[in-house]
Amino acid sequence: MPLKQESQNKAFGGTLTKYSFASKSLGGLETKFNVFMPAEGEKSKVPVLYYLAGLTCTEDTGPQKSHLLAPAAQHGIAIVFPDTSPRGAKIEGEDADWDFGTGAGFYLNASSEKWSGHYNMEKFVVEELRGIVQSELSVDSERTSIFGHSMGGHGALSLYLKYPGQYKSASGFAPICNPTECQWGQKAFKGYLSDPSSEGPKHDSTYLIASYPKDKKVAIKVDYGTGDKFYQDGQLLPENFEKAVRDAGRQGEVEVGRREGYDHSYFFISTFAAEHVEFHAKYLKA
Amino acid sequence: MPLKQESQNKAFGGTLTKYSFASKSLGGLETKFNVFMPAEGEKSKVPVLYYLAGLTCTEDTGPQKSHLLAPAAQHGIAIVFPDTSPRGAKIEGEDADWDFGTGAGFYLNASSEKWSGHYNMEKFVVEELRGIVQSELSVDSERTSIFGHSMGGHGALSLYLKYPGQYKSASGFAPICNPTECQWGQKAFKGYLSDPSSEGPKHDSTYLIASYPKDKKVAIKVDYGTGDKFYQDGQLLPENFEKAVRDAGRQGEVEVGRREGYDHSYFFISTFAAEHVEFHAKYLKA
Repeated sequence: MPLKQESQNKAFGGTLTKYSFASKSLGGLETKFNVFMPAEGEKSKVPVLYYLAGLTCTEDTGPQKSHLLAPAAQHGIAIVFPDTSPRGAKIEGEDADWDFGTGAGFYLNASSEKWSGHYNMEKFVVEELRGIVQSELSVDSERTSIFGHSMGGHGALSLYLKYPGQYKSASGFAPICNPTECQWGQKAFKGYLSDPSSEGPKHDSTYLIASYPKDKKVAIKVDYGTGDKFYQDGQLLPENFEKAVRDAGRQGEVEVGRREGYDHSYFFISTFAAEHVEFHAKYLKA
Repeated sequence: MPLKQESQNKAFGGTLTKYSFASKSLGGLETKFNVFMPAEGEKSKVPVLYYLAGLTCTEDTGPQKSHLLAPAAQHGIAIVFPDTSPRGAKIEGEDADWDFGTGAGFYLNASSEKWSGHYNMEKFVVEELRGIVQSELSVDSERTSIFGHSMGGHGALSLYLKYPGQYKSASGFAPICNPTECQWGQKAFKGYLSDPSSEGPKHDSTYLIASYPKDKKVAIKVDYGTGDKFYQDGQLLPENFEKAVRDAGRQGEVEVGRREGYDHSYFFISTFAAEHVEFHAKYLKA
């Protein structure tokens, strides 16, 4: 087994286990992730959700603060919590900003020479981690969905749309919906991509929805709060995504919830955690 | 209003608000606490639970990690989350150890000269904070209960037993049940009390249960995990408390749950959070 078990806690009748391994996608660096395995996982392979956390977070933020474990236990679904970037790549400037570099991998494969040796969180999540989880843990990778918060909401929606059929459903808590048009996304794409203007839209859910195969339905749920400072500052732009959804004629396939007064914190996420797991359960257990 | 609002988040239809004020019990030091107020609090006074956190924790640990807010919202109960000690008393040795001094107030009034000017978390919780919460927030102090984790479980049980009638019910997640007989308690009592051997039992639930007024029933719930390293190391001693409960003829008034494989972490707490709130709701809403 390529995985080293770092810790394990019993939780909600199942287990939360932290593993580490040396990741090829991330240039050989050690990375850590948590897995919540419901009790059902002891008897049979269970469906699995990938939860992508936001800027500055780690593999621990979701398990500790999201309130996702209780509904996952209830529905018999595993959740994988990866880290938000490589750690310790020793690239100049990696730790200079909270919204770029360490803790801010943006779930894409870097194309700029400086970052492409390590910052490949897309390949990491979609291929490498998924492969390891499938081979080593009691999950049924045919039944996989993805969700996330903020930067991780961008990751969830964009990876879902880039890899049709790989994930049954996607959802975002306060996701960055249109990264090429907001400061966070522009800064990330300028750093990670060698040609941001041509490559950026390929990582932007608001553009990706237009090119999604016409013969496939999408299953997407988004929630954001009107009291979210980052929403107010134009970092999330859910309205742009909603317009793109309408333009693509996919209104019935995308739910967007505007939540009065909620902010960007994990108190917002935890409030709607059960609804999101229930949304995915419909597709994972269909 | 003596309270300064530090922050507010919407959560589970209600609000989580952090306040600060200068506490007389704590020698005039500023202290912070969080309050979860369910939506019902906007219309009428609601019952209130005090959650006392454990060693090294703060007023933020419970709101972030306990999963107590969802069931509190469901039952229409407020939760007050105080800090675990004074902060910044500048007493020599205050920050030397993780299990004594800052973050480790043990919910008693210090009698030793060195600590008695500031370390009075008992008076703080039972009188001062309760008075402020009653006068400033939408709670019905006649309907108050108390619970906590580890050191805070000791606090909840011992304060409940010391002040008959003040709290409708008490519960502990992995509480220190017999502090005079465990290392944590012995160290704390040796430091905070001027005469630990005579004063210690007055802060020890395993002794307090014997002297509880015979004409009053108690309502106590305790859960601990068999995988809890601190239980295994003899820091919690729930069996001693259970024996004292039997000796006092109060078996029917105390529930003790032995949870196979669970540890001392907030994953244990969050697993049983809803059950504890439900237990208190029976008494708070009777």
